[in-house]
Amino acid sequence: MNNFEFKNPTKIIFGKDTIAKITTEIPSEAKVLLLYGGGSIKKNGIYDQVRAALSDIETIEFGGIPANPEYDTLLKALDVIKEEKITYLLAVGGGSVIDGTKFLSAAALYDGDTPWDILEKGIKTEEGMPFGTVLTLPATGSEMNSGAVITRKETKQKLAMGGPGLFPEFSVLDPQVVTSIPERQLANGITDAFMHVLEQYLTYPIGALLQDRFAESILQTLIEVAPKVLKDPTDYKATTNFMWSCTMALNGLIQKGVPTDWAVHGIGHELTALFGIDHARTLAIIAPSHYKFNLDTKKEKLAQYGERVWNITEGDIEEKAKAAIQKTEEFFNGLGIDTKLSKYTDEYKGTAETIAKRFTDRGWTGLGEHKSLTPDNVQEIVEMAY
Amino acid sequence: MNNFEFKNPTKIIFGKDTIAKITTEIPSEAKVLLLYGGGSIKKNGIYDQVRAALSDIETIEFGGIPANPEYDTLLKALDVIKEEKITYLLAVGGGSVIDGTKFLSAAALYDGDTPWDILEKGIKTEEGMPFGTVLTLPATGSEMNSGAVITRKETKQKLAMGGPGLFPEFSVLDPQVVTSIPERQLANGITDAFMHVLEQYLTYPIGALLQDRFAESILQTLIEVAPKVLKDPTDYKATTNFMWSCTMALNGLIQKGVPTDWAVHGIGHELTALFGIDHARTLAIIAPSHYKFNLDTKKEKLAQYGERVWNITEGDIEEKAKAAIQKTEEFFNGLGIDTKLSKYTDEYKGTAETIAKRFTDRGWTGLGEHKSLTPDNVQEIVEMAY
Repeated sequence: MNNFEFKNPTKIIFGKDTIAKITTEIPSEAKVLLLYGGGSIKKNGIYDQVRAALSDIETIEFGGIPANPEYDTLLKALDVIKEEKITYLLAVGGGSVIDGTKFLSAAALYDGDTPWDILEKGIKTEEGMPFGTVLTLPATGSEMNSGAVITRKETKQKLAMGGPGLFPEFSVLDPQVVTSIPERQLANGITDAFMHVLEQYLTYPIGALLQDRFAESILQTLIEVAPKVLKDPTDYKATTNFMWSCTMALNGLIQKGVPTDWAVHGIGHELTALFGIDHARTLAIIAPSHYKFNLDTKKEKLAQYGERVWNITEGDIEEKAKAAIQKTEEFFNGLGIDTKLSKYTDEYKGTAETIAKRFTDRGWTGLGEHKSLTPDNVQEIVEMAY
Repeated sequence: MNNFEFKNPTKIIFGKDTIAKITTEIPSEAKVLLLYGGGSIKKNGIYDQVRAALSDIETIEFGGIPANPEYDTLLKALDVIKEEKITYLLAVGGGSVIDGTKFLSAAALYDGDTPWDILEKGIKTEEGMPFGTVLTLPATGSEMNSGAVITRKETKQKLAMGGPGLFPEFSVLDPQVVTSIPERQLANGITDAFMHVLEQYLTYPIGALLQDRFAESILQTLIEVAPKVLKDPTDYKATTNFMWSCTMALNGLIQKGVPTDWAVHGIGHELTALFGIDHARTLAIIAPSHYKFNLDTKKEKLAQYGERVWNITEGDIEEKAKAAIQKTEEFFNGLGIDTKLSKYTDEYKGTAETIAKRFTDRGWTGLGEHKSLTPDNVQEIVEMAY
């Protein structure tokens, strides 16, 4: 096991009818900016619950934060924060709204020339404006971590940011919100959380026995509840476990002391940039090829995953590893998610070269847990995913 | 799954040669009281590492905190804190030193008549004097939770305390400390952590699939590493997993959203009070009888535990449950820990009645996850453990 540091101060408020609890989590003298996305919260009743809980707290709203939270939109929210002397942010939404709120938390207290620095120069935020979240879409884990990804259309950039000052003070997780999520987004959420775990788990053995088992626990639970959540999003037992699994998949715990990969995310982002494919689906497209291509370096963990998560008992290590990749692909397919790029676009030819070139142009530093994957390797992986 | 709230702000600093890191965790202007136990840290090199890390920070020492931290001893430390205007506490030790430090953290800022109130009136500490820990004995989990148990010999009381203000600010976990721990204490630590998990897991099914699997993960890991830790405490792979498992067993995570039992601890404390038997060993004595006695209400979880943790495949639910209890007893025996009271004392007769009477005299409120166990039930459980 590698040395590690772990600290996660976010307060989780989990369960049925918990949105009302935000009343006591936000200081009564705060001036709140309530941030949300496209307005679905006004249809499913979540908005009304939030406004009721904030009835005695001065609150201004900023809606319309898009998926892949957009820098220009966020700058408008930043103007509101400054003009209105906002002191507390409340994100009501999924990963995009929460990520956007993290950027605003950092930017509100940033005293450099331009908030773009935070993203472009990779400035870690030690202290941000305090914020809480009400999660409406289990998937990204942003509700209990300190990272965010922000998109700038103008320059076609998608950049990561974070820092110890960007943990939500609290996050409300009421699994009842799942009932109003469209099936497509539920399948995406399950896939996203599943892939978060695989990126932190499918590397090479390092003797972190407990972290491995925790990772396997999340995978087993997602596999168990996925068909139930999709079939009946009012199944409270299934949705509670789905929601808590998504949070635990990326709150820092399972990555401590172990190598992590994240190449699937690195390559997947390009497919979103090129074709607008949903983030989770890009991961499902790339993952099987990535694991097949890197079978030699990953086969021990792939076989362990196959044995423990998919109950594969037949074959040697390599055969078990291959069977585990097959099972993963079948799992995504079973959620209604295609795992081949050609199912998403007819214009897939040349994509591998294009992505390899983008990586080269950006100044290549290597992908994967060994930072050893070259642009040529990436080209091959993407070709295998056609 | 039940509704729950979870917040754990302790920063964990885990791994080889990490004690030096306390330098940057404690404010340089702090005046530190360094607290420790019987002085073993002066023999194994930990004391020297701590003093080196504190070389530029004003530090006073208070040694001699005994196992089952004693109220009268702690009052002497409290005098030092007040006379010397201490601003920061550093516990270097196992659960007893850390628990004692938590009491001092609370008492230092308590403005009531007597610090005894904190224990007797069950006052929750919202804010304590800041403190950190350097863990020297993996077992209790106190390094990453906000609870403590304090003993007062004078009145033969052992009382629990806690509150959100009593999380350590940081805890340093260097698995190399395990190399100097006597085998008896290692066996106790493994048993203590194992029983912490069982108390939070062996109740009744409530659909908390992920929490169940996390609990099973800790149990499986303890079972895997226990013989290795006992055989060779310099086995770094084994000790890292032992140490991290002990912390995760009682940092709040696996108890969230589920019923918990804690009857084994409640009864076990009495055996320590009556016979001075090591805490962990009292748990190993009581647990098998407790689970046999409550087979009807616990058999579903016992059978699940048997299947998943002990790979029991034969028999119906009740048979699997019984086999799981048997396996648990064998596991403790394999660590060199006897599971019958008569192996610890010749004067065991009448113990069951004595304990039942003590519970009755104290004003009975019921034990176990249903709060349904009566003093008569306790008497029967203890008799079964003779």
